[in-house]
Amino acid sequence: MSESKSVTLPLEQLHAFCQAAMERAGADNEYARTVADALTMTDSWGTFTHGSKLLFDYLRRVKAGGMSLTNKPFVSRSGPAWAMVDGQNVMGQVAATFAMRTAIELARTTGVAYVGVHNTNHFGAAGYYSWLAAEQGLIGMSMANDIPSVAAPGSLRAVTGSNPLSYSIPTGPNSDPILLDMATSTVAGGKVYAAHQRGEPIPTTWINGLDGLPTTDGSLYPLKAALQPMSGAKGYGISLMIEGLAGVLTGAALTWQVGSWMFDDPTQPTRHGAAFLAFDVQAMMAPEEYERRIRHVVDEIHAAPTIAGVDHIMLPGEREWKHRHNALANGLTLPADVVAKLDRLADEWGGERVEK
Amino acid sequence: MSESKSVTLPLEQLHAFCQAAMERAGADNEYARTVADALTMTDSWGTFTHGSKLLFDYLRRVKAGGMSLTNKPFVSRSGPAWAMVDGQNVMGQVAATFAMRTAIELARTTGVAYVGVHNTNHFGAAGYYSWLAAEQGLIGMSMANDIPSVAAPGSLRAVTGSNPLSYSIPTGPNSDPILLDMATSTVAGGKVYAAHQRGEPIPTTWINGLDGLPTTDGSLYPLKAALQPMSGAKGYGISLMIEGLAGVLTGAALTWQVGSWMFDDPTQPTRHGAAFLAFDVQAMMAPEEYERRIRHVVDEIHAAPTIAGVDHIMLPGEREWKHRHNALANGLTLPADVVAKLDRLADEWGGERVEK
Repeated sequence: MSESKSVTLPLEQLHAFCQAAMERAGADNEYARTVADALTMTDSWGTFTHGSKLLFDYLRRVKAGGMSLTNKPFVSRSGPAWAMVDGQNVMGQVAATFAMRTAIELARTTGVAYVGVHNTNHFGAAGYYSWLAAEQGLIGMSMANDIPSVAAPGSLRAVTGSNPLSYSIPTGPNSDPILLDMATSTVAGGKVYAAHQRGEPIPTTWINGLDGLPTTDGSLYPLKAALQPMSGAKGYGISLMIEGLAGVLTGAALTWQVGSWMFDDPTQPTRHGAAFLAFDVQAMMAPEEYERRIRHVVDEIHAAPTIAGVDHIMLPGEREWKHRHNALANGLTLPADVVAKLDRLADEWGGERVEK
Repeated sequence: MSESKSVTLPLEQLHAFCQAAMERAGADNEYARTVADALTMTDSWGTFTHGSKLLFDYLRRVKAGGMSLTNKPFVSRSGPAWAMVDGQNVMGQVAATFAMRTAIELARTTGVAYVGVHNTNHFGAAGYYSWLAAEQGLIGMSMANDIPSVAAPGSLRAVTGSNPLSYSIPTGPNSDPILLDMATSTVAGGKVYAAHQRGEPIPTTWINGLDGLPTTDGSLYPLKAALQPMSGAKGYGISLMIEGLAGVLTGAALTWQVGSWMFDDPTQPTRHGAAFLAFDVQAMMAPEEYERRIRHVVDEIHAAPTIAGVDHIMLPGEREWKHRHNALANGLTLPADVVAKLDRLADEWGGERVEK
């Protein structure tokens, strides 16, 4: 394999590459499109750790038999404002998209809805599903459990997953929604890897070593270290809330029962859980009143005085939307590590390389 | 006024004191009991900053005409799984209790419910309302907006309130629920005051001075400093989510429109907003299955290995429940600063002092 370089290309080209790779691996058009939609949107935000880079390793699990490209997720139980989805061990992106669309549909009838998913897989960027709701004018929330990688205050080892929490709030018809997507650890594991690969020591607030104490040696993660919880007891507490709503209540695997999509046996399902909430803004408030109120908050923050060197206070997601608008206008620049993964994908599954 | 000392008394005695003070000020039996319930429970957790200590300043607002002891909050608009409550400018504890009870009732029909409140006041400890749901076997969430006191990344001044977030998860019929109650600032403002009163410098991670940069001088808060957001962009982001659900969507005052219950004109309403969510666990899962699953998580955490000097990993709220069990068995020890406020209350409104 030759060394890969960064590549700039239209978003449509990346989408077509992902869609073709999925179909070549055995997914039907709709399944392939759902995955390509999620990964391309995520890359367009500049969130390359959770975009098309994942596809090579996802399909490794598919080839080994640990994940299905042909099953269909379905609602296994439901009530007026809630549903539980059996993910049928399809890709997390497919089960999560189905679940959030179900939540949006329910919320349009009842105002608010909660949809849980069990028997699913790593779903990439939590923010994508929150955005699915905001794009339709609803407030969306999205979360998932995962195998423990994060310490609790006083613990020797990992106790909870880095359990992501995301929300998105629409801000009007011609305006990007507010969009937060965060891990409940101080930093995501990917940041520890990246610093280690650059040969840099890491801050003492990122990981704890095998003695449970802070360390600056990023090489210890993940096998000999745990991530630190965001703000100590607060991050640990929010992570447990997510374990409750995305794990306990959905029937998914819990904490150490969850498989690691990267490190565990690729012939076996990971049995992740996820949860989605949708709030139908229009059911609760006249659209013009809602827009006036949310714009008040947005405009006030944008006009707030800043410290030296800061142009304006950004809303959650503002940096990502700016990245996307630039990618739409000028093409998306995929970093070399992403191109390398996509090249390996093309080499293993056939088809042209993404840069062609 | 003589100097007050700490006092140990039965919880019933504290409850009776609060109830009598409320009735003497003009509240009817039910209103007074609702407030006494919330404040006494909060004190029993050892959360003295948000318990009966607040009553003196609350009643100062009542006397000035800024808060009502006689209005009745009511549902002003609703749908199948949501309601908006007009708090009618009663005490926050009364409006919030009414709202969470409404959410519980709705969730028993639809599985999940969201209730927003506008025209309300400072509601004390967010965790109390989450617990109201957990006590009935539901998962509860509770949040509120407030006048800005917390910086955003890069801001010179406060941008959002310390907007509290709380949840409570039931763990079975004879077991204390998991209970998190957190400000979205690094630390609550009360901690800054306390360190300043003890003459101690504070860590650089607590507040920013008027130049927007971290300072160790606690005397600057609140007039010449802003609290730092928990984990920077994450705390700021969660705080905005709460502004959306408890402020924008409810019709409450937003950010700087909210009145400070401590510092602003006591003749005027503060117009806080709040939001509550309830998830009816029993609608979604057989009770024995739910209990088995949540106990799995609880027992696993309690058995997790710890660093030296730590007996076991605590669940969110575990310290507070231990404090309450001790207070129930041996009486509650009210710190001197709480007793001083209750003494002023008795002196101003009549009635016996709490220690009598």
